[in-house]
Amino acid sequence: MTPRRSERSGPTMHDVARSAGVSQATVSLVLNDVEGSRVSAETRARVLAAVAQLGYRVNSAAKSLREGHSRLLGFIGDNVASTPFAGEIIEGAQDRAWADGHLMLIVNTGGDRDLEERGIDSLLSRQVDGIVYAAMYHRRLKVPAALREVPTVVLNAETEDGSLPAVVPDEYAGGRAATRHLIDHGHERIAFININTLESGLPAVVERERGFVDAIEDAGLKLDRTLVKRGDGDAETAYRHAARLLDRKRRPTAIFCANDRTAWGAYQAAADLGLRIPDDVSVIGFDNQTLIAAHLRPGLTTMALPFAEMGRRGVARLLAGGSGAGVDAVECPLVERGSVGDR
Amino acid sequence: MTPRRSERSGPTMHDVARSAGVSQATVSLVLNDVEGSRVSAETRARVLAAVAQLGYRVNSAAKSLREGHSRLLGFIGDNVASTPFAGEIIEGAQDRAWADGHLMLIVNTGGDRDLEERGIDSLLSRQVDGIVYAAMYHRRLKVPAALREVPTVVLNAETEDGSLPAVVPDEYAGGRAATRHLIDHGHERIAFININTLESGLPAVVERERGFVDAIEDAGLKLDRTLVKRGDGDAETAYRHAARLLDRKRRPTAIFCANDRTAWGAYQAAADLGLRIPDDVSVIGFDNQTLIAAHLRPGLTTMALPFAEMGRRGVARLLAGGSGAGVDAVECPLVERGSVGDR
Repeated sequence: MTPRRSERSGPTMHDVARSAGVSQATVSLVLNDVEGSRVSAETRARVLAAVAQLGYRVNSAAKSLREGHSRLLGFIGDNVASTPFAGEIIEGAQDRAWADGHLMLIVNTGGDRDLEERGIDSLLSRQVDGIVYAAMYHRRLKVPAALREVPTVVLNAETEDGSLPAVVPDEYAGGRAATRHLIDHGHERIAFININTLESGLPAVVERERGFVDAIEDAGLKLDRTLVKRGDGDAETAYRHAARLLDRKRRPTAIFCANDRTAWGAYQAAADLGLRIPDDVSVIGFDNQTLIAAHLRPGLTTMALPFAEMGRRGVARLLAGGSGAGVDAVECPLVERGSVGDR
Repeated sequence: MTPRRSERSGPTMHDVARSAGVSQATVSLVLNDVEGSRVSAETRARVLAAVAQLGYRVNSAAKSLREGHSRLLGFIGDNVASTPFAGEIIEGAQDRAWADGHLMLIVNTGGDRDLEERGIDSLLSRQVDGIVYAAMYHRRLKVPAALREVPTVVLNAETEDGSLPAVVPDEYAGGRAATRHLIDHGHERIAFININTLESGLPAVVERERGFVDAIEDAGLKLDRTLVKRGDGDAETAYRHAARLLDRKRRPTAIFCANDRTAWGAYQAAADLGLRIPDDVSVIGFDNQTLIAAHLRPGLTTMALPFAEMGRRGVARLLAGGSGAGVDAVECPLVERGSVGDR
């Protein structure tokens, strides 16, 4: 049962006009701040006083019908609930939308294609001015055809055919910067525990590893393939990889972990072997899941995924017209805590 | 710059009527599925075919103006980005709203009262049918006066004057059930590390402790006040409390930690003292922050905060009319992993 508007219908523009002793057209001119309209300061003040006194509210739905745009943006996310980053990407997008006077309609699809289609339909029927389509992990995807009806920007994903503008984390630069940070601290034997096999094709997997390899080679170091491991992104497998790496005679002095859960596994392995971080081994992570990274002892130095910034940039591109394809790669900033020390 | 609707204005109802060879009134009757209207099956089929062929979309803004309700709900959150639970509460609320054909407009205020006021204004001007006002940690609060203009339900909070319907976690029953779970496993010396002082007045602090005390007394056990500690909710102070508790001659056999970060601190203290969980000491947490609870070794048994369920119930109350005050306390379910063993 929907509460009916009529139960609480407030004063109308007609009431304001009567109270201020002017025409409805004048009220409309004042409220819409029409350029060049010849409303005197005195009349304007009288209208605004009547608006305040009566508690009149502009009806945005009616206004948007007249103006031809709704000042609503749609946000479609595939898994808003199950990812700790969802809040950040929503907040970033909303803050930017709001700065421009837009509100955001959010649809969470849980990755279900039927729900997604219905959600897009609903958003289009609300005449949204544009849609932000956000993936909760970085990947390539096909977007539903209906999204072509309205300016759309893809966040944390790229379309397979490159047809839509996209905003993604710069995984390559992030992987390179993380490795460079270890090298700058004097490390030369650096292990890498990736979060999946390269065959997965996931940008986070492929590009972070490419960044790692390039940083090693740019520094004139020798790449030791036996120090490169492929886990599956959780602390459990990472623990086993790290335990084997750290139990060698010539163990690495630093480990680059391709996500923070992997780094957590490395911490557990180091503790079990009686190795201190960062004195005996340095660890750097990726993602900046603060719930983990900030509460490990010592705090984990890691590369932040720029979710809020992706949300902001995506909406900014929409508001700027949203046309044209092209991928906007956003820097992953280094967050220094206490897990990287000098060699 | 907002993309103008006119650039992509699609077919009108007039176009559909012409294509189907019927009047606009007939198209309207079919699309609005008016009861008792005498449109033949054949005409209906012709209209729907024309709709499909032309790709006509109902304009929801126009529809809601005619119908007197917008089928939009507002969601105001004070800190959507910085809490890992925000996604769940949003998802629960949205799923329930959607099941009833409502979309949700989300406003994140970051706790800023000015932004909040502007956000509420925006939602009211969009003629939302109701507002969900969500706090990111459970507390008592004053809500802005403007919320009285529209049915409002408060989530994860109660209004100071009890004037609005509220949906909160049942902290008392949760604290009692957690303690009962330890007692059922044979534990009699049970420590409790709370997340703040009782003077804070926070329901999570006061009620979880009340539940702990009642469970101990109901079981006929003696309450040992020296086993009750007050931390500040992070792993660091919890570590110190747990280290002192576990280093006693007659140490507790189980610790109830009033949140999962506190439990993490207890894990770290147990590890440093060479104690195994759950063989030497059992630990139960509260919150079910899966990023922590599921990845500790062993996995943490904990009470789940029912965020998705609170979102669903809050919206259900709004859709049912939203009137009347009263607090709806939602059960915090036990999530068993591996940290509680038999005494």
